[in-house]
Amino acid sequence: MNVLFTFKIKDDQMKQLESDYPGIEFCFNRKIDEGPIDEFEIIVTYGEDITTKVLDRAKSLKWLMVASAGVEKMPLAEIAEKGIVISNVRGIHKTPMAETALAHILALGRALPKLAEQQKQKEWNAKVRQTELRGSTALILGPGAIGSEIGRLLQAFGVRTIGCNHSGNPAPFMDETIQFGGLISSLPEADIVISVLPSTEKTKGLLTDNHFKAMKETAVFMNFGRGDLVKESILVEALKNGAIGHAVLDVFEKEPLPAESDLWSLPNVTISPHVSSHSGKYIERALEFFTANLEKWQSGDKNLTNLIDPEKGY
Amino acid sequence: MNVLFTFKIKDDQMKQLESDYPGIEFCFNRKIDEGPIDEFEIIVTYGEDITTKVLDRAKSLKWLMVASAGVEKMPLAEIAEKGIVISNVRGIHKTPMAETALAHILALGRALPKLAEQQKQKEWNAKVRQTELRGSTALILGPGAIGSEIGRLLQAFGVRTIGCNHSGNPAPFMDETIQFGGLISSLPEADIVISVLPSTEKTKGLLTDNHFKAMKETAVFMNFGRGDLVKESILVEALKNGAIGHAVLDVFEKEPLPAESDLWSLPNVTISPHVSSHSGKYIERALEFFTANLEKWQSGDKNLTNLIDPEKGY
Repeated sequence: MNVLFTFKIKDDQMKQLESDYPGIEFCFNRKIDEGPIDEFEIIVTYGEDITTKVLDRAKSLKWLMVASAGVEKMPLAEIAEKGIVISNVRGIHKTPMAETALAHILALGRALPKLAEQQKQKEWNAKVRQTELRGSTALILGPGAIGSEIGRLLQAFGVRTIGCNHSGNPAPFMDETIQFGGLISSLPEADIVISVLPSTEKTKGLLTDNHFKAMKETAVFMNFGRGDLVKESILVEALKNGAIGHAVLDVFEKEPLPAESDLWSLPNVTISPHVSSHSGKYIERALEFFTANLEKWQSGDKNLTNLIDPEKGY
Repeated sequence: MNVLFTFKIKDDQMKQLESDYPGIEFCFNRKIDEGPIDEFEIIVTYGEDITTKVLDRAKSLKWLMVASAGVEKMPLAEIAEKGIVISNVRGIHKTPMAETALAHILALGRALPKLAEQQKQKEWNAKVRQTELRGSTALILGPGAIGSEIGRLLQAFGVRTIGCNHSGNPAPFMDETIQFGGLISSLPEADIVISVLPSTEKTKGLLTDNHFKAMKETAVFMNFGRGDLVKESILVEALKNGAIGHAVLDVFEKEPLPAESDLWSLPNVTISPHVSSHSGKYIERALEFFTANLEKWQSGDKNLTNLIDPEKGY
């Protein structure tokens, strides 16, 4: 059984894999176009190098292990058609992303950006507006692995959590769960609205100007999911006209965010360059996902953890 | 029974008190020197206006209700001598202070200050060093009401907590509790060292240069307690020579922090102007403490909540 890794892992990680799985031939750290790929049964990839041409060349490919959470840019129809199993590392992001969400929520509440400005001016001014998180309400768009972890932490801070998904089925660590269709009527309750939704046909453009009008004027909107959830123009308008209080944006319609975007310099916007899931422990964790599935695969069990349904896209 | 409030509360809060306690005569919003105070059995104060002269004038004073947590600057010996009961609002700070501590911890871990700098430059750079909080170890100096609340939240993030107090007695939400004397040997384990200690004879100058040498070079030291825990010169030296990674300082030997202090501009220091406990809900909460004790007092029960032992200072 041959396995190709198209991204870099550390020397000791390579050695560990080779010693743990002596029956498997690993090819590490080779870009997809650097040589023939027809012998590989398994390709371990971040996903962005898998094109329809690559699929045509990968004659032996049976399992695509994608060490990333979003697969919407991959040629899913062709993957389905060729009967290739595809799995990802859903859940790998939950710790860093939940820490990121809480970091932004608490930093804004405790006025850390304002205090940092004062420090630069050597200004001692204690009259800074600070709020308490406890007792507030958060609406979480996408209460899956990541959203529920955010919910768990928010509940520890005494926050009421409302989950919002397509089905309206109850989700862990949500005091309540509503459907996408019921969003407008619940938004007025939320002090914080957080999206960790993937990009699917159902989530693209889900938020309209009416949703922002329904939010509290003090609401903080946070998007750590995908930028196509809302048109940038709608967001800019909501932020300029005070429909909401603040936005924390890690994802954008166009990435990198173009220099001419108004979002960069609006005073009530926090921009980060799609890093909410980053972590020094990422590859270590991804390899844990991979090896757990590899052992299933070796034993003939094709029911891998984190299988993706290429037709649904998640 | 006459009650004097020496700090401002809102009109609706005054009305509520007057309607809830019709047998009591309240005098609101009058500074201590603005008139005679000899008729007041109870004075509700932030504490800083209570001097020995005031105590001599307050002939009927039996209970000092201090709507603050630190009482070390008050004339405690004279208060004890006159047999005046003194209580504070210990615990009122626990929510905002724990939120502040977590805000700083998470913001540093997720590199929010660095990302804010990049936003100003409209710079899209995802190669920012970010760490995970989960799996790290925090040492909490002063695992009382506030310290334990910080511990509770840190445990929710998967952090191991070591409490450190004078007695070494177990404290809530601490995986382990050590004595002040055992500090040096536990410091090398801690990724984060947080002090919420009050100022007492035992805590003044508790941290020496040896303590900072014992910390990890990557350690984040946070002081939300009192500035006299460590000499500023020791702290500056530890930060300049890389004995520790970063400091978050909300309290200082001298406050306001003098403009000439090196701390203002060290790149690995976050300064805030003694605001970790601030909250829009402060007076609302303080009144809850006051009225609970007032009802005890009216019924003749002198065993108030949050009594202070003037000889211990806490």
